[in-house]
Amino acid sequence: MTPLRIGIAGLGTVGTGTLKILTEQAAMIKERCGRPVVVAGISAKNRKKDRSINISKLRWFDNPLAMAVDQGIDVIVEAIGGEGGVAKNVVEKALSSGKSVVTANKALIAHHGLSLAALAEKNKAVLAFEAAVAGGIPIIKSLRDGLAANEITRIAGILNGTCNYILTLMWEKKCSFAEALKKAQAKGYAEADPAFDIDGVDTAHKLAILASLAYGIAPSVKDVYVEGIRRVTLRDMEFADELGYCIKLLGIATKTKHGIEQRVHPCLVAHEAPLAAVRGVVNAVMAEGDAVGTVLFQGRGAGGGPTGSSVVADIMDIARGALYKPFTLPVKALQKNACADIESLVSCYYLRLNVIDKPGVLAEVTGIFKDEKISLRSFLQHSHTPGETVQVVMTTHETNEASMQKAIAAIGKLKSMKQPPYMMRIETL
Amino acid sequence: MTPLRIGIAGLGTVGTGTLKILTEQAAMIKERCGRPVVVAGISAKNRKKDRSINISKLRWFDNPLAMAVDQGIDVIVEAIGGEGGVAKNVVEKALSSGKSVVTANKALIAHHGLSLAALAEKNKAVLAFEAAVAGGIPIIKSLRDGLAANEITRIAGILNGTCNYILTLMWEKKCSFAEALKKAQAKGYAEADPAFDIDGVDTAHKLAILASLAYGIAPSVKDVYVEGIRRVTLRDMEFADELGYCIKLLGIATKTKHGIEQRVHPCLVAHEAPLAAVRGVVNAVMAEGDAVGTVLFQGRGAGGGPTGSSVVADIMDIARGALYKPFTLPVKALQKNACADIESLVSCYYLRLNVIDKPGVLAEVTGIFKDEKISLRSFLQHSHTPGETVQVVMTTHETNEASMQKAIAAIGKLKSMKQPPYMMRIETL
Repeated sequence: MTPLRIGIAGLGTVGTGTLKILTEQAAMIKERCGRPVVVAGISAKNRKKDRSINISKLRWFDNPLAMAVDQGIDVIVEAIGGEGGVAKNVVEKALSSGKSVVTANKALIAHHGLSLAALAEKNKAVLAFEAAVAGGIPIIKSLRDGLAANEITRIAGILNGTCNYILTLMWEKKCSFAEALKKAQAKGYAEADPAFDIDGVDTAHKLAILASLAYGIAPSVKDVYVEGIRRVTLRDMEFADELGYCIKLLGIATKTKHGIEQRVHPCLVAHEAPLAAVRGVVNAVMAEGDAVGTVLFQGRGAGGGPTGSSVVADIMDIARGALYKPFTLPVKALQKNACADIESLVSCYYLRLNVIDKPGVLAEVTGIFKDEKISLRSFLQHSHTPGETVQVVMTTHETNEASMQKAIAAIGKLKSMKQPPYMMRIETL
Repeated sequence: MTPLRIGIAGLGTVGTGTLKILTEQAAMIKERCGRPVVVAGISAKNRKKDRSINISKLRWFDNPLAMAVDQGIDVIVEAIGGEGGVAKNVVEKALSSGKSVVTANKALIAHHGLSLAALAEKNKAVLAFEAAVAGGIPIIKSLRDGLAANEITRIAGILNGTCNYILTLMWEKKCSFAEALKKAQAKGYAEADPAFDIDGVDTAHKLAILASLAYGIAPSVKDVYVEGIRRVTLRDMEFADELGYCIKLLGIATKTKHGIEQRVHPCLVAHEAPLAAVRGVVNAVMAEGDAVGTVLFQGRGAGGGPTGSSVVADIMDIARGALYKPFTLPVKALQKNACADIESLVSCYYLRLNVIDKPGVLAEVTGIFKDEKISLRSFLQHSHTPGETVQVVMTTHETNEASMQKAIAAIGKLKSMKQPPYMMRIETL
């Protein structure tokens, strides 16, 4: 039985997690694959760095690009990270030399997935990235295999554990966004520069990958509408709770008559919805299919264990001879420019206004709603302090995003507004 | 592109659901598989029966055994049902003639999986049964592929929608087991003879299949300890709720030092556990892996759509050239006699006693607990009506099943007991 020889480029959380499973579970992996899977090379910035695992007996490459073309390696695990740079070069070199590649790099796949998939196809290599979305949850394989008989109508997911941790903490500890972020950083759940997570960029990368697999479209991050969670306040959560909702950052991809709608933003989600119950640094993905109905997947989205679990699962696929297309369909069959604009979204909305409490303000706002043909569903104003600034919350019936944006722009210009209005979409799950 | 030719044996819910997807989604399936998948034969008891789908143009076989060996068929979908009989004959004939088989028949696979897998291996055919467990949820593929890098430590699932519906209804409508069962029958969720579902047999079949895949053991229904839900009362649910639990029928397979423990019985599950939130005719499976942690899968467990979704997913695997072993490992590598006895279980317990309310009864019961070295965790007696029968509930700290069974036997013999004691296990999820 010919062993499958793995080269791991990058020994951070993902690389080390992968290495650990491949070495500690070698016997189990061999039995399940019908052939040995061996670590035949490693490469990282610093060989001497203190790691939780002994690497002294493994073949070391100073240059991951050399490993990517080495004759003694069959599969490259790219665990370097980053949208371009060395990571991209390593993957391209490996695929070009006919090696299969396994990666957890969502930025790379979301931005360059199409050209890399073409390279993989051309060289009859596998490009696999189960670990790039939702860590240990096998959502990519499920879309490609388990749910393959379905026309997917919607995907909605909690795809960033950092954001879900922050939002959970805000609500459960009744603290501000800033305090929750600080705690997340102290726990190692958020980076020193948290923008990538809290501004929704990471979720957008993952959503673009899922949408590609679900709808047979070319992955396209630029078509994902993105809003982060910086403006969500505890007060918003209290208003939402009173209305029967909690607040989650979701990535949502829907098939609509205007095209595939892809959006990442904070959502009001009904308390009874399964995604509402997903607390802390957990990921969850809901997929709706025409035959299967709704299927929910939940698990840990980050960390060496879950991510390594998915990387090694991809390696085992390759060891067992799988030769699937990275995005299920051949690259030339993936649709381009198939995405809908956020303007065409139809949704119910939550709007929070900080206004001066004086007669006539509500009339001005509802007048604007009337002009845009937006129908109000509920209205909440808890304090009544004439002349002072108060918070007013409104929710609407279904309307379209374009009208809502126009209304918000007009409302924002009212003299009584003390802050720009804050709007969130209400998602029925 | 050579088409893959499918013969469907049996046109009940599963067969019709499969036929519907294969015909209505033919273009999508062709695109995703890179080749056409066509229905080349059907067989059922009654050709004339009124069906939701037009079968007049399809090649008809009066005898499914003839279809199983027909030269014009590549894959047989066995949707006849039943542990043996025609279903088993059809599968054996098809595999023996080198055809791959897809089935949703859990009884068949749980009882005869090993010999059928051997036959599939011998003939280099695929035997696939994603639809046999948890309907549309891709749990079998996930254990085989997505979680393949993990040593599974525990699987716990709500695997029977009928039971979950009945238990949900009892609690939400505050009704008796008999009333809930009647409603389930009226809704078509339970059969006229409901024993197969409510006595846990169906769950046991599914658990035996999952345990085989998770632990590399031969499927063995006889090693599954089974208790159904007939004795669960609304009063039990109220007591459980007061203690912080709800009641679910779970199938649980755990790796222990005594072997693989497989059991199906009503469990007390903490309100916060994800499985506690699974309501109605829904299935859910929780898998714990050493690398991935806990992953939860949830979806519809029955019906033509979800089941057809999984059957067609298996067909698409075959169309794309997958050639996996039915239980992941080669048949000869599957361990036999690897199961633990229920006696070796260690658990916390819930015990409900119907006793005459008189001094000394509690002393008798606690004396028996003391003899068996069982430590009491809580005690509840809500009514105090001297001389009358009252319900008393106790929960224990961790103890072993053998001691608990001895204690229950002794308690059952006490003169003050007006009914046999009723015990449920408390599962920490």
